[in-house]
Amino acid sequence: MPQPALRGPIEVVGTGLLGTSIGLACRRQGLEVLLSDVSTEHVRTASGLGAGRPRLPEDRPQLVVVAVPPAYLGEAIAQALAAGDAVVTDVGSIKSGPLADVAQLAGIERYVGGHPMAGSERSGPLAATAALFDGRPWAVTPHETSAPDAVALVEELARLCGAVPVRLSPQEHDKAVARTSHVPHLLSVLVAARLTQAPPEHLALSGQGVRDVTRVAGGDPALYRQIVGANAAAVLSLLGEVRDQLDDVIDAVSSADGAALEAVLAQGVAGTRAIPGKHGGPARPMRAVFVSVPDHPGELARLFADAGASEVNIEDVRIDHDPGRPVGLVELSVEESRADHLLSSLESRGWVTHR
Amino acid sequence: MPQPALRGPIEVVGTGLLGTSIGLACRRQGLEVLLSDVSTEHVRTASGLGAGRPRLPEDRPQLVVVAVPPAYLGEAIAQALAAGDAVVTDVGSIKSGPLADVAQLAGIERYVGGHPMAGSERSGPLAATAALFDGRPWAVTPHETSAPDAVALVEELARLCGAVPVRLSPQEHDKAVARTSHVPHLLSVLVAARLTQAPPEHLALSGQGVRDVTRVAGGDPALYRQIVGANAAAVLSLLGEVRDQLDDVIDAVSSADGAALEAVLAQGVAGTRAIPGKHGGPARPMRAVFVSVPDHPGELARLFADAGASEVNIEDVRIDHDPGRPVGLVELSVEESRADHLLSSLESRGWVTHR
Repeated sequence: MPQPALRGPIEVVGTGLLGTSIGLACRRQGLEVLLSDVSTEHVRTASGLGAGRPRLPEDRPQLVVVAVPPAYLGEAIAQALAAGDAVVTDVGSIKSGPLADVAQLAGIERYVGGHPMAGSERSGPLAATAALFDGRPWAVTPHETSAPDAVALVEELARLCGAVPVRLSPQEHDKAVARTSHVPHLLSVLVAARLTQAPPEHLALSGQGVRDVTRVAGGDPALYRQIVGANAAAVLSLLGEVRDQLDDVIDAVSSADGAALEAVLAQGVAGTRAIPGKHGGPARPMRAVFVSVPDHPGELARLFADAGASEVNIEDVRIDHDPGRPVGLVELSVEESRADHLLSSLESRGWVTHR
Repeated sequence: MPQPALRGPIEVVGTGLLGTSIGLACRRQGLEVLLSDVSTEHVRTASGLGAGRPRLPEDRPQLVVVAVPPAYLGEAIAQALAAGDAVVTDVGSIKSGPLADVAQLAGIERYVGGHPMAGSERSGPLAATAALFDGRPWAVTPHETSAPDAVALVEELARLCGAVPVRLSPQEHDKAVARTSHVPHLLSVLVAARLTQAPPEHLALSGQGVRDVTRVAGGDPALYRQIVGANAAAVLSLLGEVRDQLDDVIDAVSSADGAALEAVLAQGVAGTRAIPGKHGGPARPMRAVFVSVPDHPGELARLFADAGASEVNIEDVRIDHDPGRPVGLVELSVEESRADHLLSSLESRGWVTHR
């Protein structure tokens, strides 16, 4: 391993959720962090949380992390490049647009885009945490003239924050998030929008499936309008594909062509299998174990204590949300080879499992 | 409360997951259950599990529950109506088609359709459980000539199985499940299908959102082909709306009309809020509490034991699945008024929470 080149100070411009979390993560590693924001109150809050200290005019940062709202990214990156000789990165969710804004500036070789795949439904410095990036992918998006040392420094920042750097060109990044984030969001919205017109007795039949499909549609319209708008080309290309395949589905259902419909459904199954497994490794065979749990305090605790005593690692948990249920149905995902052991172990402790 | 009219025997035709589960639930209440199936092995298995005994020619059931695959529903309902004077119901996921098949038969006033909103990714009698229907909606779908006593008997079956009867006409039922189940499934498939064409380094940026949106797309294509095909009219009507609104989205993104895009996004938010809350009651204000949990056996147990000790009821759990994460981020949903208490309580026990 080469000696770490990232020694600080690190300036964080914009002390919202992401900026303050980066400050906290860098401070956790003992690096000096300088904070700036148009809101002095945000700087005070972030500083009070231990994310760093306010930047002074004589400070000379080694790395500047721009964490401002999408509309101000280009301007803030340009200012950071002009202010000294620091390497500059940002955490914006779209990469081509901000790069185009600054591509002709002096010092552009010191700019390397970034995008940590982390967030929260909350915003602002009070929602920040040093652990926000632990194990998350962090896209690092060098452009053609980015200096290799600058790229290495930004990747080191990602690792130092606990994330896993994933190197992509700005254009590839934008295509990737259109596919894995923006288009899923928009189709989730189209499903959810249909629910606004339904009588309550129809919605009474809602199960877990529609709840899962529509969860992300609850995100802030003002924010997603900006994100989708800034990635229009990549989003439109995929929406065109969706439209074509939607027409295929409509044709197949209209003409009762079951084989054509099944071919599309099978492609969906293949898509779910293409998503990488937990921890980036290959997907291990998992099995769901179902247990009835009374819906009051302590029962889940008792279940997990009993599951823990059986030495089986629980990879995922889902609690059934259907209406009217006095007893919850809890689904524990475990490695297939451990499921029978877990079932017997829970049953021997008096749990009602569903084999 | 009137005296229960459902005294048995109940015949279950088709001893797969649903039929056997109904047998187990009725036996749990002490009712006599008669089992029949074209597969004598399934009957033997279901009987061995305690779901009832094989039906004999001289048996005279009070209620027949038809739980056969979609393609055989009409025929099995007709046979049950002709075989005696029992009330007949079924558990098929589409209601208009089977009714049309039998509407002209003698005794049709004794038929009342049903559809428990319960299932499992597994099938067959071995996957059955008496608890499958606990607290689930169970659609009861009388037609125009269904006898009131027959309707009451089927609603009593639903309650006896622990479910909550929801009365709808067959046509309303089919429209409702098109909206809450079939169309969400198809759009989930369209999102998942896009992932099959993506390079692995793009999929490395997959977060929880796309995993949620695409989960149901993993369902069996052969089964969903039948279900969607049998509900073509209601599905097509909604897919037409989706197509129109998809065109609106494409137009808004193409022409950079942010206000038009935001209006669609806002309708999505409204749709997520229209889904009824847990236990059918009004949605209570909830808050998410985030905790870092090392990814090995026993840690979740310890977390839930500590949460249980704080006397806060955990309404939902979500474990972050992002790749590369050595520490899991666990999201606990609790009533808003209890969140701060839970956070302090967990922190005092050494947990790293994310405020």
